[in-house]
Amino acid sequence: MTLPVKDRFHLPEGMIYLDGNSLGPLPRGVEAAVSQMITDQWGAHLIKGWNVDEWMAQPIRVGNRLARMLGAEDESIAMGDTLSIKVFQALAAGLAMRPDRRVILSDNGNFPSDLYMAEGLIQLLGDRYELRVVAPEEVEAAMTEDVAVAMITQVDYRTGRMHDMEGITRAAHAAGAVMLWDLAHSAGAVPVDLGACNCEFAVGCTYKYLNGGPGAPAFIYVRPDLIGTAQPALSGWLGHDAPFAFEPSYRPASGIERMRVGTPPIIALAALDCALDSWEGVDMAELRAASLHLSEVFIAEVEARCPALTLVSPRDGAQRGSQVSFAFEHGYAAMQALIARDVIGDFRAPDIMRFGFTPLYLDEGDVRRAVEILAEVIDNRLWDRPEYKQANRVT
Amino acid sequence: MTLPVKDRFHLPEGMIYLDGNSLGPLPRGVEAAVSQMITDQWGAHLIKGWNVDEWMAQPIRVGNRLARMLGAEDESIAMGDTLSIKVFQALAAGLAMRPDRRVILSDNGNFPSDLYMAEGLIQLLGDRYELRVVAPEEVEAAMTEDVAVAMITQVDYRTGRMHDMEGITRAAHAAGAVMLWDLAHSAGAVPVDLGACNCEFAVGCTYKYLNGGPGAPAFIYVRPDLIGTAQPALSGWLGHDAPFAFEPSYRPASGIERMRVGTPPIIALAALDCALDSWEGVDMAELRAASLHLSEVFIAEVEARCPALTLVSPRDGAQRGSQVSFAFEHGYAAMQALIARDVIGDFRAPDIMRFGFTPLYLDEGDVRRAVEILAEVIDNRLWDRPEYKQANRVT
Repeated sequence: MTLPVKDRFHLPEGMIYLDGNSLGPLPRGVEAAVSQMITDQWGAHLIKGWNVDEWMAQPIRVGNRLARMLGAEDESIAMGDTLSIKVFQALAAGLAMRPDRRVILSDNGNFPSDLYMAEGLIQLLGDRYELRVVAPEEVEAAMTEDVAVAMITQVDYRTGRMHDMEGITRAAHAAGAVMLWDLAHSAGAVPVDLGACNCEFAVGCTYKYLNGGPGAPAFIYVRPDLIGTAQPALSGWLGHDAPFAFEPSYRPASGIERMRVGTPPIIALAALDCALDSWEGVDMAELRAASLHLSEVFIAEVEARCPALTLVSPRDGAQRGSQVSFAFEHGYAAMQALIARDVIGDFRAPDIMRFGFTPLYLDEGDVRRAVEILAEVIDNRLWDRPEYKQANRVT
Repeated sequence: MTLPVKDRFHLPEGMIYLDGNSLGPLPRGVEAAVSQMITDQWGAHLIKGWNVDEWMAQPIRVGNRLARMLGAEDESIAMGDTLSIKVFQALAAGLAMRPDRRVILSDNGNFPSDLYMAEGLIQLLGDRYELRVVAPEEVEAAMTEDVAVAMITQVDYRTGRMHDMEGITRAAHAAGAVMLWDLAHSAGAVPVDLGACNCEFAVGCTYKYLNGGPGAPAFIYVRPDLIGTAQPALSGWLGHDAPFAFEPSYRPASGIERMRVGTPPIIALAALDCALDSWEGVDMAELRAASLHLSEVFIAEVEARCPALTLVSPRDGAQRGSQVSFAFEHGYAAMQALIARDVIGDFRAPDIMRFGFTPLYLDEGDVRRAVEILAEVIDNRLWDRPEYKQANRVT
């Protein structure tokens, strides 16, 4: 497989898309697959779709496709809900595995929603727990014996800094803690081997590097030896061992189905299922090499041509995910000016210009052109124009 | 408006669909609307869709459409997640409003997932709470002063028995309890007036009578005077007052947005948004009259022609939602035989044959034909054929 495989995606003419770390582009075939699902399944079969189209099996069937990309066993990943919900499920299950401990450990590079969900869970549990947030480089040292669950996002959403999953998981286990990884910026971005990592839980979303579409279903992984005992705090009927027996009390499924909650989002799963086709034949090691190459070119070119910008991502590629961030005082307006010129990155407060590198649909020419346009924006102080200073973007 | 409005739906030729209480049929226009969203919004705008296509406003904008159908104020309903998740949110928020009370009251006609979610929440809270489940007719008498939250489904999923929302809410309030209604089998089925009811919370799904598609997003209503203080236990970033400020701590939005959790399911919301168009000009009182008429015809005809079947729904239409259930010893196989003849109802253990009456796309002729075919199945003991006895249906 030679990357990129641009023909697998709808890419607007002239756009250089460096925001696949936020929302992936539309893979070819998704619109047709969703239309087909709506018309030929829902429209033609109505309620019978649950049987004849095997909708009920979809959350695990699609989960199995993801499992193969993430070094996980079949039947260890369930799709559904949103990443925030899956964080809550994993955290609650993890705390229940360490009933004598009271600390959730995270780092301040974690995505805020993960921390918010932990706060909400702790409040719900009567404030008997503590959310301990340390600097990213202090995570290993902070693995003390009061930590029940360590919840870390592998790749920092702002800086792209990447944690060593296996090393941190070993440190967590040495301290007796449960390890929960958030793979939002990892799945489809860097090679992940959940089996080798040996973490108890992993969660992630599918609308970034996996290109599942806006609000695509999330995933949760539970290490196979723990699936039969992990407590599903959000104990909805589709996690029940026999959902259609309508028993009066909850009894979790023996398999990963226990992490399902409500009715699966069939239309969204059809979109994601088709989107995963664009990974066919893609080797993750090759993808990683291409991602690092694109990132290195970008860093070198920006540093050569835009000295006002300061690299805030790790310079060492081995410590960086598939994105590069630069700090710039006028970053918000500069990013608006860049977007107006069809180079799409995004901005994260207070001053971070963020660029994602997705080798499925980006090549070196795209990256070099993007830097040329960025240099024009900076050199000509286009960020100083009033139209780029309006704070009207929500993402 | 003269009902039905069959031309607003794709209805397979020859099928009589009496299962809109489980999954509504495909409304015309949905496939095109979803295609348009995928191609012209996601495909063309990518990440900019959050701004130019106003995706971020979608959960409340669609919620406002629903609010108008349910007698609720604008900005009092948020869409997203699944009904089970919304039950959890409402229950947790309700318990926090009555910190000195320890009982969640429900009835044994409630949908099992509601009870399961309550069980899971109670376990999470350290078993300091009690889930008290009484018979449907005992709900009012069970409103004792230890009840924190009364969680009742207005229309019983098995029998169609309908509770008096206003009366039970008054009883709950007289006892000082918070009232939570599950409208899964009400929204789009019977007139609902949340304002007059005065309940604190309501939740529901949109894939039944609202025809939003399999796994369509759920909704949660919070009484406007309580929105500013209701605690969102599932405190995800999209419930934050400033999601894109990425603050380190959770701070709920002042409005109903606080009941959002993760990223909104944009594709599914586009389907639902279009599906709601099929309600244009429909008067709920007229719909209710038509539903009762269809149900009365069905009951009279079945009782006249199939004496082996026993009505288990209330005979009094005022106490019945928009479905009718009959008990029959061989109900499972009889329903399979009926479905094989393109009359689609469903089965609920142990012996209930369930039929939904949806005046948007059913007329009296359909109902009479359905009973003729049912009578054939019963008279000819088709339920005794081996092919109908296989327990292979999941819904």
